[in-house]
Amino acid sequence: MSKMDNTIFEDLKKIEKQLGPLSSAQKILLTTDGSVTTILDVLKGHVTIRTLIQDFRIADATIADLLDIDKGTKVNYRVVIIEGKEPLIYAISIIPIDRLDNDFKEDLIRADIPIGRILKKHNIESRREIKSITVEEASKNLQEIFSTDSFMLTRTYNIIHKDQVLIWLKETFPYNKFKE
Amino acid sequence: MSKMDNTIFEDLKKIEKQLGPLSSAQKILLTTDGSVTTILDVLKGHVTIRTLIQDFRIADATIADLLDIDKGTKVNYRVVIIEGKEPLIYAISIIPIDRLDNDFKEDLIRADIPIGRILKKHNIESRREIKSITVEEASKNLQEIFSTDSFMLTRTYNIIHKDQVLIWLKETFPYNKFKE
Repeated sequence: MSKMDNTIFEDLKKIEKQLGPLSSAQKILLTTDGSVTTILDVLKGHVTIRTLIQDFRIADATIADLLDIDKGTKVNYRVVIIEGKEPLIYAISIIPIDRLDNDFKEDLIRADIPIGRILKKHNIESRREIKSITVEEASKNLQEIFSTDSFMLTRTYNIIHKDQVLIWLKETFPYNKFKE
Repeated sequence: MSKMDNTIFEDLKKIEKQLGPLSSAQKILLTTDGSVTTILDVLKGHVTIRTLIQDFRIADATIADLLDIDKGTKVNYRVVIIEGKEPLIYAISIIPIDRLDNDFKEDLIRADIPIGRILKKHNIESRREIKSITVEEASKNLQEIFSTDSFMLTRTYNIIHKDQVLIWLKETFPYNKFKE
């Protein structure tokens, strides 16, 4: 089940109570069911990704639960920074590779292409289910990547294709970004 | 074929040259491949729709071409205002009803539910193809609806489902809205 719309509103209100007002761009980035790549392209100029981690893992109980797959299934695990002139969004994706078509798999594993652009290239029909929207304190790692100790805004969501979770995603950006 | 990303950027630049800068929210509303209803819900509080026209038409050559259907096919033609406390977006939709499932058809024809919300309710997997992004002078009709003679920002796009155009949409809002 996806979060009900009302829960999403409440999550945003809770965050605003804690941190102060969110900009339109921040609210949209946390809640959209469209391509985040497209939004960043339009706001910041053509964005690219820098891959920090790309490997195959065997799903433990937590990952199995997130993706609705069996424990022990092989997944593609990827951590990237989506960046324009500077880092914009830190993103973790987990994909059960058995659910991928061959062409799509190749693009996803080989190249540094944002997922939104890959889905578009392959004309993938899908829907996105927002799972959580939260605030986190910046880890040392994120502080270094974004050169800030600002609080971090984070959401997790699924991209559903053919009634199955094709991609689980976690996206994080600092509260002091996308303020305009 | 959808418009290439580059063309979308150029369209936005052309509009900014003509009218002045677009806000982040305006740029996103003109280019997103996600639900516009969700974005409006988040920016303006829960939005509703007011139906101005809802009827069945026989596709002429123009409509047949837009939807990639045969001339003479029956379509659902709907004109609505998406509104919060005030009118936000004027939207025209055309749907070839033969391509609709029964449940979905009922919701679409019977109730004043925004299309984004109907797609979500029925877990429809789809993709959106932006066709055009333009500026128009406000018609008398739009001037009255929005109580402004501001230029109008307009886009057209298709919602594709099972490799066919499920919905053709045209959305219009004044340049003096969504400025924050």
